[in-house]
Parts: sequence; structure tokens; C-alpha cells
Amino acid sequence: MNKAIKAAVIQQKIPDNDKTVNLSVTSEKIKQAAEQGAKLIVLQELHASQYFCQTEDADVFDLAEPLDGETFQTLAPIAAELDIVLVISMFEKRSAGLYHNTAQVIDGKAGRVGIYRKMHIPDDPGYYEKYYFTPGDGDGELNGFAPIQTSLGKLGILVCWDQWYPEAARLMAMAGAEVLIYPTAIGWDPADDKDEQQRQLDAWMTIQRSHAVANGIPVLVANRTGHEDSPDDRAPGQTFWGNSFIAGCQGELLAHASENNEEVLTAELDMARSEHVRRIWPYFRDRRVDAYGNLKKRWID
Amino acid sequence: MNKAIKAAVIQQKIPDNDKTVNLSVTSEKIKQAAEQGAKLIVLQELHASQYFCQTEDADVFDLAEPLDGETFQTLAPIAAELDIVLVISMFEKRSAGLYHNTAQVIDGKAGRVGIYRKMHIPDDPGYYEKYYFTPGDGDGELNGFAPIQTSLGKLGILVCWDQWYPEAARLMAMAGAEVLIYPTAIGWDPADDKDEQQRQLDAWMTIQRSHAVANGIPVLVANRTGHEDSPDDRAPGQTFWGNSFIAGCQGELLAHASENNEEVLTAELDMARSEHVRRIWPYFRDRRVDAYGNLKKRWID
Repeated sequence: MNKAIKAAVIQQKIPDNDKTVNLSVTSEKIKQAAEQGAKLIVLQELHASQYFCQTEDADVFDLAEPLDGETFQTLAPIAAELDIVLVISMFEKRSAGLYHNTAQVIDGKAGRVGIYRKMHIPDDPGYYEKYYFTPGDGDGELNGFAPIQTSLGKLGILVCWDQWYPEAARLMAMAGAEVLIYPTAIGWDPADDKDEQQRQLDAWMTIQRSHAVANGIPVLVANRTGHEDSPDDRAPGQTFWGNSFIAGCQGELLAHASENNEEVLTAELDMARSEHVRRIWPYFRDRRVDAYGNLKKRWID
Repeated sequence: MNKAIKAAVIQQKIPDNDKTVNLSVTSEKIKQAAEQGAKLIVLQELHASQYFCQTEDADVFDLAEPLDGETFQTLAPIAAELDIVLVISMFEKRSAGLYHNTAQVIDGKAGRVGIYRKMHIPDDPGYYEKYYFTPGDGDGELNGFAPIQTSLGKLGILVCWDQWYPEAARLMAMAGAEVLIYPTAIGWDPADDKDEQQRQLDAWMTIQRSHAVANGIPVLVANRTGHEDSPDDRAPGQTFWGNSFIAGCQGELLAHASENNEEVLTAELDMARSEHVRRIWPYFRDRRVDAYGNLKKRWID
């Protein structure tokens, strides 16, 4: 991997489901990030539309696209023009009745160099993702946790709910990921008090920073911000909490966005640090692979 | 498990290797914790002596004891008298030429109810543990990651270097641990600058708090404090960084000790929170057990 990489994560409010307009606005922000020198740019989860999983509605599948659909067609030329590595997120129609929450990596003029289909799918009130997304395929040698080779290095892309699973981060690192990347869309339940909201935000930052610590590689997180109403008038809608961040390979915060504002957040990743940190804290030397078999179980009972 | 448990972690300076005196001082601190209402009390790693792994010296094996040795003989009656669950840590002589870094759990009058032998053994300059300790056995149904049943609930005991491994915390939780407990002895390299020291301390707190987050259970950490000279005059000795803490099941800090002082740190664990938190963040529902097989590998290459 290059010795130093200027990286950016883009945190946005999405006002409606006009994908053409949304992708145009996002394109401008990508250009701003590139003007600031970013070579690796990460967009938030499902950035082309509002977060459509607030209710279960069969008509919403109209928002889905094939891998080569409007989102890719709009953004691939921009990545090529700017000569950047761009991580996009989209609602993928793989076939009639088969949809995924998919990230694509576009590497400048080389175009799409890999995709990642979200492996862990959440489902709770206002986040009805199990209705919309089939989990990523678990077959193949890497069981779906496959880093994507780019001109900047190997990227371990994971998406939102994946962020709570140390297993996912570990598998990406063991397969050679040099940085972990999380497009995400998470917010608060307005029914929770301020203390609970703070605990949830802290937990979310802590678990993702811990993946940097456990694996000795940087972590980039692009989260959505702003309020989006629910199609269900009785529901409170979602208030996404922003707080996108970039952490170094000891989990230290290099850049940290606000809660409520759109931001183009950048930081310099010192890739030589990973080699150093893995020398002083050689966790991979000592994993008890003879004793981890039960991790494949659902529960030990 | 009981609905609420008052817990304590005891952070100490150890002035020399007079075990009888050290255990007597520790006994007084255990009594102080019990007077404050603590029913679950955790001691730091290898508390009966100074941290003896700063050099490799065959004579140091004289410090080791059998499970029923002086450490147990001194502390078991105190646990019985105070009717507490006490987690102690000792240099175990299992046989001639076979030693472990072992925690024991003493449950009031019931005496010893279980032991845990440190599974992941570190080794770096000033922490020559691979010379002294054989890793815990990995055979048996739980492969060494076996929670210990007590009158207060099931305790997932892990020791120091284990703290960097999400696999260890996960396996304990999956085997029913209701709280994670880390006796530890970690400090700074005085050759590092303040920024590096801060990154290391933050990483250490972050990874352990993340085990609470990932598994929805509280975490107790008892760390050593104070400076201990090395037998090797050319070595700087160890400056243990204290900062023992107690975190709730979302990783939130309930109590946090200073860097340099001896402390009896207490907090109330609300055990009903785990049930609630695992309902709102049901990570165990969605683990991709079909796709985690590579976690048993050393590396994926």
C-alpha cells in the first residue's frame, strides 16, 4: 500500500428520493474532497435516496438498480476523471425478488474493481432491512468477507450493521485488508433520553475504533445525518446522528464530524504505521486458533 | 444472575516480593471494598508479587505456588468471612517445569469454584511471559474459554493479553458469561512520547469497552499501578498505568480509576440491563456462523 493516503468520508443529508439530483449533489462533494487532495473517498450507506427501510413497502423495490445502474453510471466517470478510488453504496437488484445492500469500489479509469454485499442484516423498528436485503453470499473461499484490491491497497469494505461484529473486521484483516471502511446510516430513537442516546453513540464509535485496535489498521466511517420522515405518519422518522470519523491503526481519532452538518471530512492515513503497530502489539502472533472452533456456533449450549 | 451487584476492582502498587506482606495489605483492601458493599471483588494480575516477567530468570519460578498455595490459603478465608465472590490471580505451579498465569474464583464459604488459565500469552521487551507461562489448555468442549458459575452469576474471567482478543470475549459470552473480568498488569514504555502513551491507554480502554458493546455485558478491569524497577539495571523498569475501570453493558464507564494511585473502585452493575440491551441490539441473532470458518485459521493466504 502507498505510504500515505489522503482519505475522505462524505456525510450528507438526503432531502428526498430524486436519485438524479441526489447523485448530482454527491458528485459535487466528491469533487470538493478531491480538490482537498483526497485519493480515497467513501460515501455513506444508500446515499442515492432517503433511508427507505423505515417501512415495509413492495413499491420501494422500484428504487433498486443493477450494479451498472444509474448510481454507477453517474459516479464511475467522476472517479475516472478525478483519478480517485471511490466507495459507493447502492440498493442492488440482482434479480427479480433478490436484492442486496451493496458497496462498489471504483478505481479511477479501471472502473469497478470489486463489490461487497452486506453480510449482517439488521431488523428493528424503523430499520426493516431484512425485508429488503438478502445477506451477502457466504460461499467461496473467503465466505463473503473479501477485501477489494485497488491501486491504493486492499480495502476491507463492510456496511453498517456489520460494524458491530468483530468477526467481520477480523476476517477482512486476515484476508489482507489494509483499511476498514464502513458506509453506514444510523440514528437515534427520539423516544430515548439524552443519556441513552449518548451511550449508543459512544458504543458505536467504540466498537468501530476497536476494530482498528484489534487489527492494527485504520477505519473510515461515513454516516448519514439529518432527519427523514417516515412514510408511516405514526412513526417518528429517523434522526441520523452523523459523527462520521476516521481513525488511525491504534483507534485514535484523526478526524471526527459533527452530529447535524453535512461534511467532507478528510485525514491523512499513514500506512507505514500499521507495520509498526503490529510489531509492538503482535496480536496475530498469539491468536489461539486451536481454541476458536466454537466461534462457528450460534451459541454454546 | 442477581438484578444488581455491587462490584469492586482493586488497583495496587506492589513494593516488593514479600508475598505474606503483600497479601496482608491486599486483604485489608478487600475488607474496605466489602465494607462499601461490594459482593464481587476483583484483584489485579499476579498481585502477590511484583511483576516478575521483566527479565528471564530461572530462580523466579520459586515465586510460583500450587492452586492451594499461600495466595489461596490467605484469601479464601477472607472471602468466606466476608461472604463475597473474590477473583484472585496467581503464578501457578502445576508441575515441575509447567507453570500458568491463573485466576481463581472463590465464592464465599463454598471456596474455590473455578479457575481460568490465561489463554493468550504475550512476549515483548520487559514482558517475557512466554518464558514463564504455558498457555491455558485448549481442549475440552469449551476450549479453555469456560465461564465460572458463582452465587452471583456466571463470570467470564480473562487475563491481561486476552483483553486484545475479541474472540476470547465472544466465546465467554456465548458460553453464558454474564460479566467479563480482566485482571491485568500493563504500563507504558518510558521511551514513548506522551502522544504515543495516550494512544496506547485509549486503545486499551477502547478494546475492553468494545467487548461490553459486542456482547451486551459489563466489563471489570483491575490494573496494576506504580513503578517497579527491573532486575536488569540497563532496563527502565515498568510504569504501570492504572486506569482500572468498570463499564456497563453498552461499554459506558461506570467507574474509572486514576493513573498513579491505589484505589478501591466500586460500581453497581445493573444486570437487568443486559437483557434489555440485547433486545434493542440483537447481535447474537444475526451472526453469520455459516461464514466464520476462517476465524480458525492463522491467516488467510
